[in-house]
This record gives sequence, structure tokens and C-alpha cells, in this order.
Amino acid sequence: MRPQLTLGHIREAHARIRPYVHRTPVLTSGSLDALCGARAHFKCENFQRAGAFKARGAHNAVFSLGDDEASRGVVTHSSGNHGAAVALAARNRGISAFIVMPRNAAQPKIRAVERYGGRVIFCEPTQASREQTAERVRGETGACFIHPYDDLRVIAGQGTTALELIEDVPELEVIVCPVGGGGQLSGVAFAAKSLRPGIDVMGAEPAAADDAARSFHAGRLIRGPDPLTIADGLRSASLGELPYALIREHVTDILTASEAAIVQAMRLAWEVLKIVIEPSSAVAVAVLLAGGPLAGRNVGVILSGGNVDLDRLPWHAA
Amino acid sequence: MRPQLTLGHIREAHARIRPYVHRTPVLTSGSLDALCGARAHFKCENFQRAGAFKARGAHNAVFSLGDDEASRGVVTHSSGNHGAAVALAARNRGISAFIVMPRNAAQPKIRAVERYGGRVIFCEPTQASREQTAERVRGETGACFIHPYDDLRVIAGQGTTALELIEDVPELEVIVCPVGGGGQLSGVAFAAKSLRPGIDVMGAEPAAADDAARSFHAGRLIRGPDPLTIADGLRSASLGELPYALIREHVTDILTASEAAIVQAMRLAWEVLKIVIEPSSAVAVAVLLAGGPLAGRNVGVILSGGNVDLDRLPWHAA
Repeated sequence: MRPQLTLGHIREAHARIRPYVHRTPVLTSGSLDALCGARAHFKCENFQRAGAFKARGAHNAVFSLGDDEASRGVVTHSSGNHGAAVALAARNRGISAFIVMPRNAAQPKIRAVERYGGRVIFCEPTQASREQTAERVRGETGACFIHPYDDLRVIAGQGTTALELIEDVPELEVIVCPVGGGGQLSGVAFAAKSLRPGIDVMGAEPAAADDAARSFHAGRLIRGPDPLTIADGLRSASLGELPYALIREHVTDILTASEAAIVQAMRLAWEVLKIVIEPSSAVAVAVLLAGGPLAGRNVGVILSGGNVDLDRLPWHAA
Repeated sequence: MRPQLTLGHIREAHARIRPYVHRTPVLTSGSLDALCGARAHFKCENFQRAGAFKARGAHNAVFSLGDDEASRGVVTHSSGNHGAAVALAARNRGISAFIVMPRNAAQPKIRAVERYGGRVIFCEPTQASREQTAERVRGETGACFIHPYDDLRVIAGQGTTALELIEDVPELEVIVCPVGGGGQLSGVAFAAKSLRPGIDVMGAEPAAADDAARSFHAGRLIRGPDPLTIADGLRSASLGELPYALIREHVTDILTASEAAIVQAMRLAWEVLKIVIEPSSAVAVAVLLAGGPLAGRNVGVILSGGNVDLDRLPWHAA
């Protein structure tokens, strides 16, 4: 079944979220271009509200709700950026947000949710416990569940990134975008191909969590074991069904990067671009640096977020 | 004697350097505004070519030279950003750059000069050895000496930052700018006050290297002992004479920040703004966070550079 998504939905999402999210800048660097042998345009979602692209999808979902539905609040489960984004969007709409988080979630992530007024409900660190706890909260409160990626309102919100990027860099030939659950990659690919059928959209995934690449190449949705990668935003065990359907149709390829290449790319971005990006963003930079099908082209690179624990930088671990 | 500087010189400098330097973006952050109780506009010279505002003054000086004079190359002494900036400007003009650096200069700084094609000449790590070595190179090569701050062409170049900032943020009431030798603060203050006589321009200086604040308040140029501060770009023992004369006339006050406040501000900027700034930039952020005369106002904060050794972050030293 093809997901019922249109370019109109993406444009509506863009108008809906505009008062609440940043139009993020696009950075370029002659030094980095020389290193990667391409003309790279970095879309800085690390500068986005709450530090990641997730603010787009969360705001579109929360502001799509009818007043009645919204009045009972929203609920989601998240160990990371989606939880903070939903809390922020709910605060902007003036409604409650219930964020189910695993007991072992990183302290900065918990603080971020609380900073935006979200109510944190702890669960066991398993997918089953997350889902059951969120379902229980939904039953008790009547709050509307907002899935981190398997939701067309969320996907449409993430796709707005591509509208801005293509408007700012009309000469773009390829877009590279990290992929975990697939909400961002599917939204970006759908929006970009709808605007520019000739553009290539590539996913970038840690080799250590390559379920999306394997699903893409096998032509069926493969669920991996719980993956271990430094790219904490991309640890989902599989693509969502809606993202998978869109990715299959609109994405050119999914490229992978080793853990070492991700850390190296992250450090390089900090040093050369002078910006703080998280490992999940660095996966796209690592793919860019590897050259391959991107060499010599005008490449849009989506830096998905910048939420990093500054006390635990990966190059200090070594 | 009043330095012979006019707003016309700053505008000429801006036109001269435009092909070679970035027009850097201005970032804002609701979270940071809440923390500092002001409306802050961050002028990101950390994104400047070679990673610091020094590219402006260096390009203006190098491209102000007549063809004959330029043909013999340029020479300077620097342990930091000015050396790389002069090397880059010389490369852009197609001439030689001789950069005198102390033997104990940081490896990344030496590599930066070499990356831009500068010829590094080592000297002893004293001010006298630097000056003597530069003078010797000048005598041997006929290269033109470009002082890091006591030079009106350099000062005019640094002042172009204020033109851009005021154009981008017309509602600005105060500008805060780090001060070491005074090249940037004097250029920014002169340009800002020439455009907007009502604006306040404040210097920001490490308390551990407060010769500029003491000179400003004493009304005479005080030379400190070689200062020890984490803000490695601001370790000059005194203001230059030209910068001092301009600062005395155009600057409202010079505020200081403790070493601990500088480190805290640096970390906060990385975490909240998601950008890499060096300690010298963080001095301006520390002054902003302290509130005082800046509270409640529209403040332009000049983030002077982003060259940091990622293996030696100050919050890991503790």
C-alpha cells in the first residue's frame, strides 16, 4: 500500500510549523570540499529548536491535532531527541506531554524533556516495555500517541527540511541524510523527488546498524537485533513501515560507514566547520568523505542534530 | 595623536576583502537569551576563513600593498590565528608569507600556517626573539611586515565585522568584543560608533590578563607581565598604541571575566548554540552571562574565533 502523502502535505506542514521552528542555515567550507572532492552544502538541523530535526515532525503532529483531541495531551516513547521535541511542541500548543523513557536514558536527555515541561514516565529499557508503558499512559489519560517515525504527520514535518534546502541551493544534485527509523530520510526523499524528480537521495547508516541498507537491498523490511553504534539516534532495530514504503520508492541507495569513520567525520566537522554535531549527523559526513557516488557533485548533507554529552566525546574514549 | 582612520577606510576594506572572506552569519538562541536576560546576537567569526576574524585584517593589509611592495612577500610573527590568516591572504594574492613562530607553538597552529602555504621560521618563545627574528627576515627578504594589531590597515579590516553586524541587526544597542592587542575591539568600536554614535561598545577581557581594562580605567597604556589565561588569543602583554588611542575614544567600558567563567561560558555556547568557539570568544559570552550593563538590551556578541585543540578541552582538564 502506498502511503497517502503529497507535496501539498509537506507544504502545509511547513506553513504550520514555521512559527515554532528555525529555518536553519546552510554552511559551506572550501577546506571540507577539498577533503571530500565534492561541493557540500550542510543543512544545520543541529541548530534546530531542541537541537535536532525532530522538532519539525513533532510540531507538525502536535499542531495537526483537533482542539478536542489535543486537549488530552500527547504521549510518546523516546530515549532521545524525539521526546524533547514532543515536549517542546506540546508546550508551544499549551497541552500536556507524557514522555516514556527507559530508566537508563542519558541524564542530559531526561533534563531536556523536563526543561520543556514534559512529564517523564520511566520504563524498563526494552522495546516491549516502552510500548506497553506508552499504551498504558494513553489508556489512562486519553493522550494522543505520536510515534517517532511511523506517522505521516511526523514524516511530512521532517520533509520540510528538503523544501528549505532545495530553495537555498537550487543547484543541488544529491541529498545525503542519516537513517534510523526512517522518518527523516523518507520525508526528505519524498519532498525532494516531488520537487526535483532528477535529484538523488541517499541514506547514510552506521555499518553496525545496517538494517535499513539490508532492507533496501533485499526489497523487504528486515528487523535487525538491537544494534550497537555510537550513533545513538540511529539505534532503531528497523525502519518503520511507512518510512520503508517511501524509501523504497524514492531513495537511490543507502550507504554505510564504520564506527571509526563516523568518529573521524564527527571530529572533522567540529574542527573544520566549527559546529557541534552528534554522531548520528556524522554518519552523513562520513559517507560524504568516502566519496563514491557523491564525488564531484553538488551534495546537500543533512546534519540531523547536535545533542552531545560534552563530557563523553568519542575521541577521548580511545 | 589621533589615528587617521575614517569610516571610508572601513568601507574600502570591506569591498577589498569581500572576495576572500566569509560574510559570517549571526545566530540567536531563545534558550541563551533566557539564561543571560538579554537579546543576544552572535556574530560567528569562528566560521570565518582560517577560523577567526584575523582573516579580515590580514586580507585588507595584504591587498592594500602596491604590486611592487607585495612582490617581495609579507612577514609577521604570531603564535596563533594571525599567522594563518596572513599565510592565507598571501596565498590568495599569490605572494610569499614568512611566519615567525615560537618553537613551542601548538602543533595545530603550525599546521594551519603550512596548510595555507606559509613558510614557518621558528624563534625562541620570547617577545624580543619574535621581533628580532621578524626584523631579520624582513631585512633578508624585503618582505613587508604586517603587525597583528598595531596597524591601521589591520584595524580597518577587523572593523568590517561591525558593518555587517549592524546591517544585519539594526536594533543593536551594545556590542561586546574580546580584547587582547586591541585590533578587533578598536576597529569594531570605531566602525560602530561612526555608523551609530548612540551605540555602546564594550571590551571583554580575561581578569587574569586585564592590562587593557587597567589601561582604559587609568587613562594610560599599561603593560602587564606576560599573562597566563586559557584565552590564548588574548595573551598579549599590552594594547597596541593605535588600538589604545581608538579604544580610549570609542569604547564605553572594558569588562573582565574569571578563568572559571570563561570555561563555563565556552561549554555553554557549545551545548546551547551547537558551535565550536575558542576560549578567547568565550570571554565575550562570559561577560554577557554576567549581565551587569548588558542586561535587558539588544547585544551583539562577537565570537572572534573557533580554533581549539579538540584533544585538550578545558572541562576535561579538571
